[in-house]
Amino acid sequence: MSLTQGQMASISIQAAEYFQKLPRTPFADFLAPFITSPRRIPSFRARFAKIQKPIEEAIISKHNLELKHITIADIPVVVIGPPIIESRNAEKIILNIHGGGFVLGSARDRTGLLMAAEMGIRVYSIEYSLSPEARYPVARDQCLAVYRQLVQLFQPQNIIGMSSSSGCQLMLSMLLLAQREKLPMMACQFLCTPAADLSGAGDSLVANSTRDLMPTSYLLAMVRQNYPCDIDSRDPHYSPLYAEYDRTFPPSVITVGTRDSLLSTGVLLYWKLRDAGVKVELLVTEGMWHGFDWEEEIPEAIRVRAAVRAFLLDYAA
Amino acid sequence: MSLTQGQMASISIQAAEYFQKLPRTPFADFLAPFITSPRRIPSFRARFAKIQKPIEEAIISKHNLELKHITIADIPVVVIGPPIIESRNAEKIILNIHGGGFVLGSARDRTGLLMAAEMGIRVYSIEYSLSPEARYPVARDQCLAVYRQLVQLFQPQNIIGMSSSSGCQLMLSMLLLAQREKLPMMACQFLCTPAADLSGAGDSLVANSTRDLMPTSYLLAMVRQNYPCDIDSRDPHYSPLYAEYDRTFPPSVITVGTRDSLLSTGVLLYWKLRDAGVKVELLVTEGMWHGFDWEEEIPEAIRVRAAVRAFLLDYAA
Repeated sequence: MSLTQGQMASISIQAAEYFQKLPRTPFADFLAPFITSPRRIPSFRARFAKIQKPIEEAIISKHNLELKHITIADIPVVVIGPPIIESRNAEKIILNIHGGGFVLGSARDRTGLLMAAEMGIRVYSIEYSLSPEARYPVARDQCLAVYRQLVQLFQPQNIIGMSSSSGCQLMLSMLLLAQREKLPMMACQFLCTPAADLSGAGDSLVANSTRDLMPTSYLLAMVRQNYPCDIDSRDPHYSPLYAEYDRTFPPSVITVGTRDSLLSTGVLLYWKLRDAGVKVELLVTEGMWHGFDWEEEIPEAIRVRAAVRAFLLDYAA
Repeated sequence: MSLTQGQMASISIQAAEYFQKLPRTPFADFLAPFITSPRRIPSFRARFAKIQKPIEEAIISKHNLELKHITIADIPVVVIGPPIIESRNAEKIILNIHGGGFVLGSARDRTGLLMAAEMGIRVYSIEYSLSPEARYPVARDQCLAVYRQLVQLFQPQNIIGMSSSSGCQLMLSMLLLAQREKLPMMACQFLCTPAADLSGAGDSLVANSTRDLMPTSYLLAMVRQNYPCDIDSRDPHYSPLYAEYDRTFPPSVITVGTRDSLLSTGVLLYWKLRDAGVKVELLVTEGMWHGFDWEEEIPEAIRVRAAVRAFLLDYAA
């Protein structure tokens, strides 16, 4: 992708280089339904995992992380332990729900690894079942089953939530059901570029459709073909942007980039939670793409992760 | 301008109607230097004033505002008085610097009128000299001269700043000089879609170039032709985004829309102030244009003005 001088002047050199290495996807809108068809997902997933593996292993080895595979309520969970747990975090854990459009990714992706390493805290990352094999709301219900156990194992005020993109849909929907069940709420949470609205609403889905890392048409076709619901796509559990919240909902910090397809969703979710009286902070970063947060070395990502940690430590204190 | 169904779904009906009434400007990039040439500014300004006048008069009469024309340090100032001053605001005033690309607008524009009416506070609005007749830094120095007097007339903690677009460049540059002069700082301020960077940097100048109310090429040509500086356009007083700030700078609330040409500048200024330890809040609104804040009846504008007032009352308490 090419950037103008004015666009380059407002982002870091590292981010500008990152963009310039990205290829434009030709015929994206035309190809989207084929590329993301259910039958192609297994090979898509394998290719994605192969690209991620060396990045994950580098983070694990650099930060000396220990990974343990356990089950909670019969759901696989990866527990990521940093070599040194910060004393204020000794009793705390992060509950992580990874992203990947409901079809890709794993519990040991960069998100939990970097958070464990940089915050000095144990991360419980849920290996929920992916789509299209698992249909909505299987993954969400798995997350809820894990949460039910976690609030028994840990003081709820010691649980910090974190989720990315599609993982945020699972997290928000799960928390709404947990509230209905009168389960105690977690201390606070981090919603990284939340896919809180699967209905296709939002200005940035149009404005950033070919400016983000992945063409919007891929994202939309991936969800529509692999993670459909039989209900209205604005159902508050399928698209939790449309749910009703109240001030008992956990304090939340939301991150998005201005080049992000989900910029609009992040902004709308901020106002939704704020208007409901939830403590919420929105961190918008200039010129950044969907999920830039998890680049270990990009200055904008380092800065936003520090700001997120500051929020979480404030509310989980 | 036309909107997709997804774009319409994420904004209010009123805002969607507003957009659909706006014409697209054909050949904007080509026409920009002609339309905004110094010789055309007087008629441009007169046309703009004629459009604004009935809107301003409607606000004045609806809210029963009283306008007094005074001078402070020989600079004309419009004092806008609401019929009822809220008791907590009895000793407080707002200092307003209007926008208009340095070439248009007046001290009695909607910004000060609405703020006086909705907050129940007296507004001192500076009638600074416009460009191209006045060159940089004439207007900024006029604002500084007024500020020097105001901090004698009022307790600095009772002065609340407010500025819009190009007015924010004047405000920020003025406050930086005031700090250097060891003048006391105001209690807090509202920076509405700040033109804090006149160098042409920023992703949104490209991404929103034909999506905002006015084509970006008009804005850039207007400034370049009528408000040039003989110095580097990244000079910290000409483009205060590049200035150094410290925690003694007034707490600031910044507003922008995602369709705003100055979205990037707002976002960058937020991080600049935050990293310097300044108390700062960024309010981003979905799908909104440059200066949408001042539409009296658009729900998104009503909401953001309420959030701004909440911030100002917090910090001017």
